[in-house]
Amino acid sequence: MAVWCEAAGGVRGVVLDISGVLYDSGGGGGVPISGSTDAVKRIKESGLKLRFCTNETQATREKFVAKLQTMGFDIAVGEVIAPAPAACRILKERGLRPHLLVHDGLLPEFDQIDQSNPNCVIIGDAAENFSYENMNRAFQLLMQLEKPLLFSLGRGRYYKETDGLKIDVGVYMKALEYACDIQAEVVGKPANAFFLSALTSMGLEPHQAIMIGDDLVNDVGGAQQCGMKGVQVRTGKYRPSDEQHPTVKADGYVDNLAQAVDILLEHLHK
Amino acid sequence: MAVWCEAAGGVRGVVLDISGVLYDSGGGGGVPISGSTDAVKRIKESGLKLRFCTNETQATREKFVAKLQTMGFDIAVGEVIAPAPAACRILKERGLRPHLLVHDGLLPEFDQIDQSNPNCVIIGDAAENFSYENMNRAFQLLMQLEKPLLFSLGRGRYYKETDGLKIDVGVYMKALEYACDIQAEVVGKPANAFFLSALTSMGLEPHQAIMIGDDLVNDVGGAQQCGMKGVQVRTGKYRPSDEQHPTVKADGYVDNLAQAVDILLEHLHK
Repeated sequence: MAVWCEAAGGVRGVVLDISGVLYDSGGGGGVPISGSTDAVKRIKESGLKLRFCTNETQATREKFVAKLQTMGFDIAVGEVIAPAPAACRILKERGLRPHLLVHDGLLPEFDQIDQSNPNCVIIGDAAENFSYENMNRAFQLLMQLEKPLLFSLGRGRYYKETDGLKIDVGVYMKALEYACDIQAEVVGKPANAFFLSALTSMGLEPHQAIMIGDDLVNDVGGAQQCGMKGVQVRTGKYRPSDEQHPTVKADGYVDNLAQAVDILLEHLHK
Repeated sequence: MAVWCEAAGGVRGVVLDISGVLYDSGGGGGVPISGSTDAVKRIKESGLKLRFCTNETQATREKFVAKLQTMGFDIAVGEVIAPAPAACRILKERGLRPHLLVHDGLLPEFDQIDQSNPNCVIIGDAAENFSYENMNRAFQLLMQLEKPLLFSLGRGRYYKETDGLKIDVGVYMKALEYACDIQAEVVGKPANAFFLSALTSMGLEPHQAIMIGDDLVNDVGGAQQCGMKGVQVRTGKYRPSDEQHPTVKADGYVDNLAQAVDILLEHLHK
């Protein structure tokens, strides 16, 4: 039995990653992972608090949630913590005007943001928009700024689509960091502030919550840095080598979300 | 007077970078830098040995040299050390079959190389070929190999074209390194082996030769690592901040190649 079960009795809230945990993305919108729609339902019925913490930046939260609802998930926009709204708050607080290198589907999230005469660059999972031309435009703009400022909506290496692994925004963040000799600010997992906003919205302390994700470093490691427990599912981008990672060790490994929920509910309130 | 002048008397050979020293690349093939065609001629007339050491990987050596000749440069294919032929030697020695992510113009350099069932990836300055789709293909191939092997034809951050700075192959090397959690092997400057092959072909020891380039880290720093003197020109991608670089200090800075040759010839045989 996994070590994390011993802590399950004190858990009051669950934070779930979405892509690779609830469903695998890909052509036609993707497919739910077996048992996951029911697992979400069982968490809600148990009285545990629940938030979804995603680095998804190919669509607005509204469109993303609508897609998941169509797949049968009981999920609402207000339950989802995503990088783009967090970035908009930062831009407003700091009076910044971004140049956006993001997926077309994400653009409406920035409708209310002044993008004239940009003084920073924001990159998301732009996928096909990561052309040489667009990368050069972001690079040239950064090089023209006195203090180049790059925000990256996540720092993932890759994710799994139904037709295979795809490189993620973190890869292009590293590219621009090297090109401009700068360090990006990450908005999204594994940034502490991102997990904390999920905890705040549930009214819980870190030790009362558990994160379940398929990304060992950004989901599990990020949550642990924040004081939460972190469990990795063997779905999505999981690779067996994750269990021998040199620096990040999950509090538990489960075959999928359904198994995580089985164990969690079995030990709840014990 | 620059410190390197004192050493100029012992110099028997010169290694020149091409892009940003002889000419600025860009639309229509680029334009010679003022005084550079004459400077090359004066080096040759002086009896100094001369090699051109380039990380250019957008064209075959033959086409590249033909373009430079059209601009008025006295240069021959046999005088040019370039990454693609060096990579071909490595592939043959180690029995490797590459997947190529390079500029279309470079492909003929690999005509004699078996590219079936690839067991390594080579990237060059692919420019527009650095699409998300092509980056994913290279990434997926590397992830399928038991020991992912990536060769990068140079590790430059950016270069100057007539219409501005453009990101170079090193940026995409860093991207794939992060995506796959690997370290690339660099073929080209600043690899030691690359400078040594220029020295060998001149029959000179490192202390007898001087490198003149616009890239502080890859031209100047690389040559210095090898035991040569390194001088930076204030043309091409040069930026004033280079003169305050935290780790690399050139033996001298000159306004352009013409001035470097003025100083060199003035002190020659003194």
